[in-house]
Amino acid sequence: MNPAFDPERFRREGRAVVDWLADYWAGLEDRRVAHTVDPGDVRAALPVAAPEAPEPLAAVLADLDRVIVPALTHWQHPGFFAYFPASTAPPSILGELLAAGLGVQGMLWSTSPACTELETHVLDWVAELLGLPPRLSSRGAGGGVILDSASSGVLVALVAARERATAGRTNAAGVGAAPAALTAYASGDAHSCVEKGVGIAGLGRDSLRRIPVDSAGAMDTAALERAMADDAAAGRRPCLVVATVGTTARGGIDPVAAIAAVAARHGAWVHVDAAWAGTAALCPEWRAALTDGADAVDSWGTNPHKWLLVNFDCHCLWVADRGALINSLSTKPEYLRNAATESGAVIDYSDWQVPLGRRFRALKLWLTLRLFGAEALRQRIRDHVTWAAWFADRVAADPRLVLLCPPSLSLVCFAATGGDAATLELLARINGAGEVLVSHARVADRIAIRLAVGATLTERRHVEGAWRIINAALAPPSAAEAAP
Amino acid sequence: MNPAFDPERFRREGRAVVDWLADYWAGLEDRRVAHTVDPGDVRAALPVAAPEAPEPLAAVLADLDRVIVPALTHWQHPGFFAYFPASTAPPSILGELLAAGLGVQGMLWSTSPACTELETHVLDWVAELLGLPPRLSSRGAGGGVILDSASSGVLVALVAARERATAGRTNAAGVGAAPAALTAYASGDAHSCVEKGVGIAGLGRDSLRRIPVDSAGAMDTAALERAMADDAAAGRRPCLVVATVGTTARGGIDPVAAIAAVAARHGAWVHVDAAWAGTAALCPEWRAALTDGADAVDSWGTNPHKWLLVNFDCHCLWVADRGALINSLSTKPEYLRNAATESGAVIDYSDWQVPLGRRFRALKLWLTLRLFGAEALRQRIRDHVTWAAWFADRVAADPRLVLLCPPSLSLVCFAATGGDAATLELLARINGAGEVLVSHARVADRIAIRLAVGATLTERRHVEGAWRIINAALAPPSAAEAAP
Repeated sequence: MNPAFDPERFRREGRAVVDWLADYWAGLEDRRVAHTVDPGDVRAALPVAAPEAPEPLAAVLADLDRVIVPALTHWQHPGFFAYFPASTAPPSILGELLAAGLGVQGMLWSTSPACTELETHVLDWVAELLGLPPRLSSRGAGGGVILDSASSGVLVALVAARERATAGRTNAAGVGAAPAALTAYASGDAHSCVEKGVGIAGLGRDSLRRIPVDSAGAMDTAALERAMADDAAAGRRPCLVVATVGTTARGGIDPVAAIAAVAARHGAWVHVDAAWAGTAALCPEWRAALTDGADAVDSWGTNPHKWLLVNFDCHCLWVADRGALINSLSTKPEYLRNAATESGAVIDYSDWQVPLGRRFRALKLWLTLRLFGAEALRQRIRDHVTWAAWFADRVAADPRLVLLCPPSLSLVCFAATGGDAATLELLARINGAGEVLVSHARVADRIAIRLAVGATLTERRHVEGAWRIINAALAPPSAAEAAP
Repeated sequence: MNPAFDPERFRREGRAVVDWLADYWAGLEDRRVAHTVDPGDVRAALPVAAPEAPEPLAAVLADLDRVIVPALTHWQHPGFFAYFPASTAPPSILGELLAAGLGVQGMLWSTSPACTELETHVLDWVAELLGLPPRLSSRGAGGGVILDSASSGVLVALVAARERATAGRTNAAGVGAAPAALTAYASGDAHSCVEKGVGIAGLGRDSLRRIPVDSAGAMDTAALERAMADDAAAGRRPCLVVATVGTTARGGIDPVAAIAAVAARHGAWVHVDAAWAGTAALCPEWRAALTDGADAVDSWGTNPHKWLLVNFDCHCLWVADRGALINSLSTKPEYLRNAATESGAVIDYSDWQVPLGRRFRALKLWLTLRLFGAEALRQRIRDHVTWAAWFADRVAADPRLVLLCPPSLSLVCFAATGGDAATLELLARINGAGEVLVSHARVADRIAIRLAVGATLTERRHVEGAWRIINAALAPPSAAEAAP
């Protein structure tokens, strides 16, 4: 038996870890949602140096309980309503386990064809489930890929956009060699990764025009039109517009069709960042609002690791012209050359992303779709939206609170009537109880408390519980104690 | 019971997947190493659309056996000697399972402190095990981070280098606003990710100077000095030198100390790409050769997912000045602001990488170090180097083969005496037998067959078996059949 891999020991230890996780999930509701540690506490509990001799798994599991778990914010807790929840579930966890256990590399089709073809295939499945247009599927000139995050999706779209706008000149000779200064556009509420991306790709953060949003949190298309025209008139070259479907702060939805029409006049690439909200296009009743205009965009991305029970990382990016992406990112040194690539009949996904290597991430998406089935995944989203609407109604009816905007799908943004300081104090009191976790953002220049329904274990009673906790946080403690 | 997560069902299905993987590993040696499918075979075996109703896990496991496994190249097979093996083992697989099962986000310290602190801590452990200088550890101004791949390590080092060379000007105003054209340097044998990175970061691939290597495959420092001086004299600004410790093609080791001395004269950032070979610095006998000069570099990266039994993805990057990285990549919108960040007492690793989100990858490295212990990990590397040396001796003594260079650690490069066509024919015959897989590269303008020892299950007998297979491939079949 090879000492590095004893299958019988793996069976035994694998079961122990599975059982540890099952116990963790079974006990989640009884924990505080958020950690209670101070900076340095975890490190202080760990040995200064790595062990020279082997330790038993039991020692590691004991340290998980002793050191690690108390220093986690439990993103899978049913009371987790912060940020956007990063929901996962057994099919995805087991898919990740399979990917790790198979240990194959999908950098080229030839290095493990199933890793590539399952990914292409499952992304066609998802595109169809979401109602994305056929041109984004692999049947035509487009297709989908799994990247780690929406940030990486924006970055590769930006690089492809930059190259398209300069006929490949910047990839070879640099952004400084572009015939005109390149500019990019996104709403003022777009995710911070757009700004990060234009910095990384060498356009410079100043080249990003932050277009104002209207009262619904959607990009003002007239303002976009003016900004693009002004840049073009000044001799600059608009190359990318990022439209957001479901902004982080409040779930605003940019008018993609109108944006694409404006962008087309300048030949700019249109990328849709539907990281969170895109998953809701599974449900026909919201599909039109979420995918309107998708037939005119160059790339469209969403994150099953947010609302589709797939563990991070799983960002699905579809492009209309895979050639534009590949031309920007391909490198083929001798050691990667192979007959399948040269036949032109295969996809090499390393040409669609920053890293060369890639693991078999399609497995977790495949298992999730098969073990749940599409209808159950739709029903979960519907439940979350229903519960969020119920919660928003309570907020709207309460004079101590302000509903800052209508709920967007499962996201509710509200504030204390007393202003930002009162809102931040309320936020601290809600989270201080330890039963729920909500986060904050800036919505129309006010601090908003965000309640985002979406965690795997969250049921209606947890949303009702969140409302009870908020009520308690609003009532002065002394008054509550004095109540009969 | 919440239908999305039934702990008892998870126990049952988790065990089934663990058992399936144990069987897969137990049977690996009896499989052909490489897949035998044609483009499209996998997709043709899958349903056209996603299922609407749930399917049982057993159906998925059956499809793994029927569709997926035959279309894999088995990177964990004991006869896998291609590329650099991507070795994994139970501790890492179980660490990945734990990360998926806990499902926490480590984008900020505050979103799960253990995810950040365990990573910082374990990277200090590894830095010490490798003999990296204290300035790269978190105790001073530096520290380590886990990224997905060496490509991403090069990219973030490049962005930091670009910003340092322009005092942050390019991040804000773009590469076109740099006071002088920026240039980067790497040897002609450096990994393709350097070229990809300078393209993505907007310097342009033409800005990368490929410095010749000497007969040992190491960067010619005098040529580097000339290239940098020429660029500076022409008004360009050298900003980054990538030194490779263990080139992909042949394992060449650039003279890092000499390179750093040259780079210092131009204020250029020095990044060491020790993706594969760096792990061997665990062993004191090779440490000096692999880490010489590390006390003068700005960043140093290696991949435990290659030779340290950690499954992809796990690239460890250490930087001497974490501020330089953070200044280039940080974004802090309102929804990410928090008291811990503002205290300055914590690391927010989203500021060290392209994506915002991050999973708990430190767990798999922690489990690997603890369940094996450092000494067993060293012994594996020593064994691999010993077996590669034995194999190289056989090649050197055989008149039908040419040893193209002395073995570098566990990598042997050889060719057929008849020239490139004969070498490619030999490669096809070796791999055609299905018992081993080797790959090829270009070494000093000749096609080389590369035998890289490093797969988890590989034992001495498998290297001996590879030599027998190569012997059989060299002998004309008819002659072999005619032998008594």
